Amino acid sequence: MPGKVTINDVGPRDGLQNQAVRLSVEQRVALIKALLKAGLRHIEAGSFVSPKAVPAMVGTDRVLDGLQDEQGNFSVLVPNMKGYELARAAGAECVAMVLYGSDGMARANVNMARVEVEQVMEQILQRAASNGIRVLATIAVAWECPFDGPVAADTVAGIARRFVQLGVDQVVLADTIGAANPQQVRNLTTMLVSEHGAERLACHFHDTRAMGLANVFAALESGIRSFDASISGLGGCPFAPGASGNVATEDVVMMLEQMGYDTGIDLRELMNASQLAANLTNNVPGGRARAWLERHLDKKEKLA
Amino acid sequence: MPGKVTINDVGPRDGLQNQAVRLSVEQRVALIKALLKAGLRHIEAGSFVSPKAVPAMVGTDRVLDGLQDEQGNFSVLVPNMKGYELARAAGAECVAMVLYGSDGMARANVNMARVEVEQVMEQILQRAASNGIRVLATIAVAWECPFDGPVAADTVAGIARRFVQLGVDQVVLADTIGAANPQQVRNLTTMLVSEHGAERLACHFHDTRAMGLANVFAALESGIRSFDASISGLGGCPFAPGASGNVATEDVVMMLEQMGYDTGIDLRELMNASQLAANLTNNVPGGRARAWLERHLDKKEKLA
Repeated sequence: MPGKVTINDVGPRDGLQNQAVRLSVEQRVALIKALLKAGLRHIEAGSFVSPKAVPAMVGTDRVLDGLQDEQGNFSVLVPNMKGYELARAAGAECVAMVLYGSDGMARANVNMARVEVEQVMEQILQRAASNGIRVLATIAVAWECPFDGPVAADTVAGIARRFVQLGVDQVVLADTIGAANPQQVRNLTTMLVSEHGAERLACHFHDTRAMGLANVFAALESGIRSFDASISGLGGCPFAPGASGNVATEDVVMMLEQMGYDTGIDLRELMNASQLAANLTNNVPGGRARAWLERHLDKKEKLA
Repeated sequence: MPGKVTINDVGPRDGLQNQAVRLSVEQRVALIKALLKAGLRHIEAGSFVSPKAVPAMVGTDRVLDGLQDEQGNFSVLVPNMKGYELARAAGAECVAMVLYGSDGMARANVNMARVEVEQVMEQILQRAASNGIRVLATIAVAWECPFDGPVAADTVAGIARRFVQLGVDQVVLADTIGAANPQQVRNLTTMLVSEHGAERLACHFHDTRAMGLANVFAALESGIRSFDASISGLGGCPFAPGASGNVATEDVVMMLEQMGYDTGIDLRELMNASQLAANLTNNVPGGRARAWLERHLDKKEKLA
């Protein structure tokens, strides 16, 4: 029987950092509040990275300030110990770290080998444990790397095993460039769910090749009940100009609710948040099911 | 292990009849030849219906004439015995008939109850058997009807059972309005494959709610190895203006080939056929993965 599924909206970080428009702190807080109003309770609120590298995320400390009175699980991305300490000083209760399925992607992103990244992240993880801060560990390019090609499932399984044992709250398997097909997703998620159970695992898909929802379904079939998604499909991938970005929160929620899963999210409010995200970033609203959702919600019909 | 999957392109019928532009017989033949060049071997070439009701399909006899020297399995839609006789006279080797999962849809389309339609189709089937003509039977609104709501799986199973026993070559389960979710698809296809085996079954999806590829994957997981699709996503649904139409052949083929299935179709030639379909109908080329496919094919990269 279907049960609850958790959606973590990464739009305010993964989405906004890929936009031409740079939002003010107030606008970023407004977007997050719109997501909260729609019922989202897990949101990636920003990151503590180099202001030079990612100017769009400057002021994440003030974003967290703006959310102090809100109910929600807000995570912030940290790339290194300096970022971690900034996040802790800003009162973050959950940090997100990025691991890599390939050396090529690790080199391109942080100029380290993937095992060097793992060593850095292990240190952060230990400090977070002593500080009582939760940790999400995303394994980027968990299926395919734009530089090194296909990533072996055993490699990803090894990274996941190590970080589960080290105590991360959740390992997020990320198809960073939207290259995975649902059969590959099914294979890897089945393997990892059988080893760790579903609660410690999440998936993160991009819609570059239009397989985002198919991949969500494939992961669901393996038992995964936690997914990243991005409001209005904000995101994009630097390696695939013009492509769709992250799988849109509204598409994922629509499919899950139609299948009988409980996301706790109100689709009408979610469409308002999607419109706000589009307005703020000078985009047309995204999401592949948007045309249908608009008609459907206008008619006030039942969803299923 | 993945094996062969058969794609039946319904664009030259299901797609073209929903276009504002009316194509000449020569243009329709050119589109079908472009599909053949891409490797498609199953194509719905037209229909023998009332010229008043569907003017776009006038001249299907001459379309078949134009394909006499081509290798391919061409089907033509027939709504009644008159249409069947016209198809037979035109040399059709395979006819497609439409059954209905609901009375509401049967009434709206042909002004009969669904069991009345089944009686008409049974007569056609008997005559086709005596004429040595193959028959495909599509069950429209196999999951949900825009008039009567959800369609019970038992109803569809009963219709499928009757027509399999009557000897149709294939029963095609059609999500006519793009309302099915992959869990529903998985449930119905699992049930029917276990009763009839996969060879007698096919699926037909629309991408109205962006779940087209997820539904293809769900059906594949149940063992289905035969799918309708429409070049460039031509189609649309009269009940969902502005929505996406049939799931695009190029999206389906891309996903299948990436999963290791053999469709026998060349994606580069398929994109040429898609461009031709768009040009002929004054559309921009469809397919949700088009942006990625164009970049990929331009770079002459390997697909997987």
